[in-house]
Amino acid sequence: MKFSFKNDYSEGCHSNILKTLLEHNTDQQAGYGEDQYSLQAKELIKQRIKKSDSEIYFVSGGTQANLLVISSVLRPYQCAISASTGHILNNETGAIEATGHKILSIEKEDGKLAPEDIIPVLENHRNIPHQVMPKLVYISNSTELGTIYTLKELENLSKFCRENNLYLFMDGARLGHGLTSEISDLTLEKVAELTDVFYLGGTKNGALIGEAIVINNKELQQDFAFNIKQKGALLAKGRLLGIQFLELMKNDLYFELAKHANQQAMKIKNAMQERGVQFLSDTYTNQIFPILSNDVIQKLSEKFEFYVWKKIDENFSAIRLITSWNTDDEPVNEFIEIIKTEL
Amino acid sequence: MKFSFKNDYSEGCHSNILKTLLEHNTDQQAGYGEDQYSLQAKELIKQRIKKSDSEIYFVSGGTQANLLVISSVLRPYQCAISASTGHILNNETGAIEATGHKILSIEKEDGKLAPEDIIPVLENHRNIPHQVMPKLVYISNSTELGTIYTLKELENLSKFCRENNLYLFMDGARLGHGLTSEISDLTLEKVAELTDVFYLGGTKNGALIGEAIVINNKELQQDFAFNIKQKGALLAKGRLLGIQFLELMKNDLYFELAKHANQQAMKIKNAMQERGVQFLSDTYTNQIFPILSNDVIQKLSEKFEFYVWKKIDENFSAIRLITSWNTDDEPVNEFIEIIKTEL
Amino acid sequence: MKFSFKNDYSEGCHSNILKTLLEHNTDQQAGYGEDQYSLQAKELIKQRIKKSDSEIYFVSGGTQANLLVISSVLRPYQCAISASTGHILNNETGAIEATGHKILSIEKEDGKLAPEDIIPVLENHRNIPHQVMPKLVYISNSTELGTIYTLKELENLSKFCRENNLYLFMDGARLGHGLTSEISDLTLEKVAELTDVFYLGGTKNGALIGEAIVINNKELQQDFAFNIKQKGALLAKGRLLGIQFLELMKNDLYFELAKHANQQAMKIKNAMQERGVQFLSDTYTNQIFPILSNDVIQKLSEKFEFYVWKKIDENFSAIRLITSWNTDDEPVNEFIEIIKTEL
Amino acid sequence: MKFSFKNDYSEGCHSNILKTLLEHNTDQQAGYGEDQYSLQAKELIKQRIKKSDSEIYFVSGGTQANLLVISSVLRPYQCAISASTGHILNNETGAIEATGHKILSIEKEDGKLAPEDIIPVLENHRNIPHQVMPKLVYISNSTELGTIYTLKELENLSKFCRENNLYLFMDGARLGHGLTSEISDLTLEKVAELTDVFYLGGTKNGALIGEAIVINNKELQQDFAFNIKQKGALLAKGRLLGIQFLELMKNDLYFELAKHANQQAMKIKNAMQERGVQFLSDTYTNQIFPILSNDVIQKLSEKFEFYVWKKIDENFSAIRLITSWNTDDEPVNEFIEIIKTEL
Repeated sequence: MKFSFKNDYSEGCHSNILKTLLEHNTDQQAGYGEDQYSLQAKELIKQRIKKSDSEIYFVSGGTQANLLVISSVLRPYQCAISASTGHILNNETGAIEATGHKILSIEKEDGKLAPEDIIPVLENHRNIPHQVMPKLVYISNSTELGTIYTLKELENLSKFCRENNLYLFMDGARLGHGLTSEISDLTLEKVAELTDVFYLGGTKNGALIGEAIVINNKELQQDFAFNIKQKGALLAKGRLLGIQFLELMKNDLYFELAKHANQQAMKIKNAMQERGVQFLSDTYTNQIFPILSNDVIQKLSEKFEFYVWKKIDENFSAIRLITSWNTDDEPVNEFIEIIKTEL
Repeated sequence: MKFSFKNDYSEGCHSNILKTLLEHNTDQQAGYGEDQYSLQAKELIKQRIKKSDSEIYFVSGGTQANLLVISSVLRPYQCAISASTGHILNNETGAIEATGHKILSIEKEDGKLAPEDIIPVLENHRNIPHQVMPKLVYISNSTELGTIYTLKELENLSKFCRENNLYLFMDGARLGHGLTSEISDLTLEKVAELTDVFYLGGTKNGALIGEAIVINNKELQQDFAFNIKQKGALLAKGRLLGIQFLELMKNDLYFELAKHANQQAMKIKNAMQERGVQFLSDTYTNQIFPILSNDVIQKLSEKFEFYVWKKIDENFSAIRLITSWNTDDEPVNEFIEIIKTEL
Repeated sequence: MKFSFKNDYSEGCHSNILKTLLEHNTDQQAGYGEDQYSLQAKELIKQRIKKSDSEIYFVSGGTQANLLVISSVLRPYQCAISASTGHILNNETGAIEATGHKILSIEKEDGKLAPEDIIPVLENHRNIPHQVMPKLVYISNSTELGTIYTLKELENLSKFCRENNLYLFMDGARLGHGLTSEISDLTLEKVAELTDVFYLGGTKNGALIGEAIVINNKELQQDFAFNIKQKGALLAKGRLLGIQFLELMKNDLYFELAKHANQQAMKIKNAMQERGVQFLSDTYTNQIFPILSNDVIQKLSEKFEFYVWKKIDENFSAIRLITSWNTDDEPVNEFIEIIKTEL
Repeated sequence: MKFSFKNDYSEGCHSNILKTLLEHNTDQQAGYGEDQYSLQAKELIKQRIKKSDSEIYFVSGGTQANLLVISSVLRPYQCAISASTGHILNNETGAIEATGHKILSIEKEDGKLAPEDIIPVLENHRNIPHQVMPKLVYISNSTELGTIYTLKELENLSKFCRENNLYLFMDGARLGHGLTSEISDLTLEKVAELTDVFYLGGTKNGALIGEAIVINNKELQQDFAFNIKQKGALLAKGRLLGIQFLELMKNDLYFELAKHANQQAMKIKNAMQERGVQFLSDTYTNQIFPILSNDVIQKLSEKFEFYVWKKIDENFSAIRLITSWNTDDEPVNEFIEIIKTEL
């Protein structure tokens, strides 16, 4: 079978997780997230973000986390704002709209939102009550394009949102990758300080399932648990989520795994740059979008799986390569070898 | 720590599941349910129900399965019918109503629906278009009270539903326990033949998470996958669900586990009946509801955890005891010893 | 054509309304409720209830008013409580559930709710977060059965709701009839003081369309207009609603019309009581439910239209008679004549 | 008071309507659209479109009609497609999303959709089940910009939709104006033949309230009445809607009124064109968007009300002028006089 660079959820989970699942398998625990592993994991996260009054909930996946947060936070006539590349806009089968809320899309090449992008949207939504009320800004870090927010950018955005009564919600499906990027100056503590809600993605970073929703804004904490149950997202065996985050948060394993994934992608990126390859976007996380000739793409696809992302012209296309917490040196080196041979 | 008879989801999962998760942990697999384990597990279920044209989807939990099926099957103005004890009515935080659908409740002592229960509901809902249109009959087997449907009862109900253009949906959160009850004459094949949709519950029968939704009615199969994604129920690592059902379906492990749980409950029931204990309902599955004096309940609660279910009078209450796939002889025998001593 | 006692919306509207519509027909006015008639009508209502800080919105009908208020007031996981006879439960095609909210039903013979009815519902909904959170109490005055609340009853209920963090919402589709009942000691001012929201029904009391939603609780006022637009309930020509309520509120025409309807019903009731007729419920508004022999019902139905409401036994049934703002003496007297002849 | 060219719903309704309302005011009629006027009006419309098997429903307004049709037609995971100027996108407070459905927006200068606009949207929505399924094409005629579809354009679009299993829905809030435009070669019969659903707008063409939804596709007719009731759109006194459409459809009054409105706009347009005025879009209906200098706009606004629609540069802006069924020659001539004086 060919090695796949298609995504970061092709393998199972980090071995520590399976080991602990096995170790505590027959322990009886309270259900629905009241198990001791979940309670401990929440404590670890609170310590890590240095915010004892944040509330934390573990859910199964990213779409679930997004729809839970947004539908819980907004009143019926309020809407979310997202960059046009936002996962909630194009990749979640209308999950947000299915809860009754519009998403206003802002075209952005790099997948990142800044105050100046949002200002015109606010200005164009003042025909009360004939238009939805923009109320929540949805961002991803790293973004769907692999780009990241700097501390300064997030500070500006956060300040803008607070001044304009907008909630700031960060989709952290790949937050580990964003924060451990070699060019990132943002920290998890700062994310917790600057957002109203964010989540730490486990599924794409070494867990079997699981995202940890962190609600920092106290006014949004109330009664969140009801929404989790109502949307079918409350696992009877919450231990499955608790144990995973317990293991991932111990000794910063979560960040080590993400850093590893980033490094493997950077190795390929660097090898390509040395050969003059151009990229669709300049990323420093575990997603890269090199532009290659159809011939080279053909050669690579004989040994590897990946997505052809965007046709550039008759002879060139951008591909998307994603590395994971479990991507070994071997396929990376083999991939680089082909690049070196072909370019 | 006290041993808990509170529910059947207090422990982890059957060891075969963890073993296989470990064994295939680093295999790369397609995401979102397209992994080979899921495909194989679906095949096993189809063979077991002898219906190659049923469609099968794995989701995380019971509330999720219920809301997915009901919201997918009904048009906006249609509603479900449920016994008053139905899980969807009282224990899912309005999950069905949150998708826009009313549930009509029918008072039933034993938690089971028969055609004669449903007829008056249909007759009282003919003021078109001022009332919702009853369209789906929701039943559970075993029920929330531990009772079960006989083959004859299910045949009658199925026939009635088909004659009245009603869909029949069986919540199988404890289907294993229902079918392996010592008094059951119903089989999984018959369930598949007589219902439009049902699910095989994993969470309460040895899985970490997972319910297998089986759609038998072809007109209800179309596009179901969209709903799963839209409601946040599609796991990126579908392998987690696939491997669990693969192991549970192999050699009928699923039914062995349920049978074991039932037998442990019956041991306690029999010991109590020998001492003249009365029960709130006459069950033959893994849930029993003995009526005991407050003194005896007090004694038992020193060593065991369980729910006091219903006050009968000043001196007596019914308690609920649930045994699981993992309930060993030791706590069962110890419990019986106390009964023998105290009664 | 037979005269109909089927309901109180069989005729058009009070002539003052048509006269004013005609008089101002070609005046240009701002749209969407900003017309001067709407503004004046709101002022009149505020003066009448002696609450200058209530907010008033005119919408088209009762189901619309109910769904707007309830969906605006509740968070996704909260639910309404209603007597089992409540219009929202059985006569609105699941309109409330379609906005995502469950309604908990309380069996009541007389269609009225008291604190002691609600207490057990609250006690049975404390399994957080597995059950919906009761948050709004829905009552009707006069009720769907023609009964009414006394001042004392409403005070008790209001006090109870405030102590238990429940909103109290009065469906006033027939509020005029309730308040002008010969046995009522409740006033419109008191209704405004004791409820969080209520509405003054126009459709069943001399308007072509129109209910005036009055929001007394300031925390529920915010942004209500958005919901009206979003649910398709904001009329471009708000003047149609404004003019109607302007005319109805002038010189208490609204209450005169309701009183007239009540009086016509009472004439029939009294004539029947003199002949020993029993009633399904003891009403003093424009709805009466006499129990008559099939023979008498047959005789009456030769000249009049009405609903046969409930079969009592082989020989007797209750019928429902509704009188309106426009029910003249002639049909009433003719009806009474038949009663006198037949009984 | 200044004369307003702000919209076509500033006045009441055509006098024939008020006359008939008065004439039949005290007739008793069945409720909820079963009155004889509604039945007759539906017949007139069916004859006019020469489709006896279409089904017709009268509702109050455009947003209501749009949300009823779209939420009734689509399954939860399906979405609508609209030009970026579509009323449902920007002017209905997220009414469609509030029913659970996404709207995909297509940027179009002229507000009209053609097959070539839709093809790329379909091609970009094939990642099943991760994206919504495009299923309904929403168009307006005349559009929100005053432009219209030719017969050929509608035929092409209709053919494309049928080939691609898309429903075609025409918002006819200003259908009269579209069809009576001096450059239109489209007829009402053709609209009925080429669309699955459309509506005839009354509110903007001489009615107090009212849009006539015409469902031509038989598979979409079933049970539509339930949705009307559930969404709070079923008027108890359906006579109000029936009488209005009865009068509007008699002797093509509907089209005469629209034609009149168009002609008044064209007079102003022609006068402006003679003076060399440019327009934002080239319209032949009752909406025109002349580009004028700030000085001229200032002069006009001393005597007239209208919207300044779009800033062109420091010295020029486009204004929007809308004429109605009731716009007399006097204000039109007066307006033209100012133009002639100032330009």
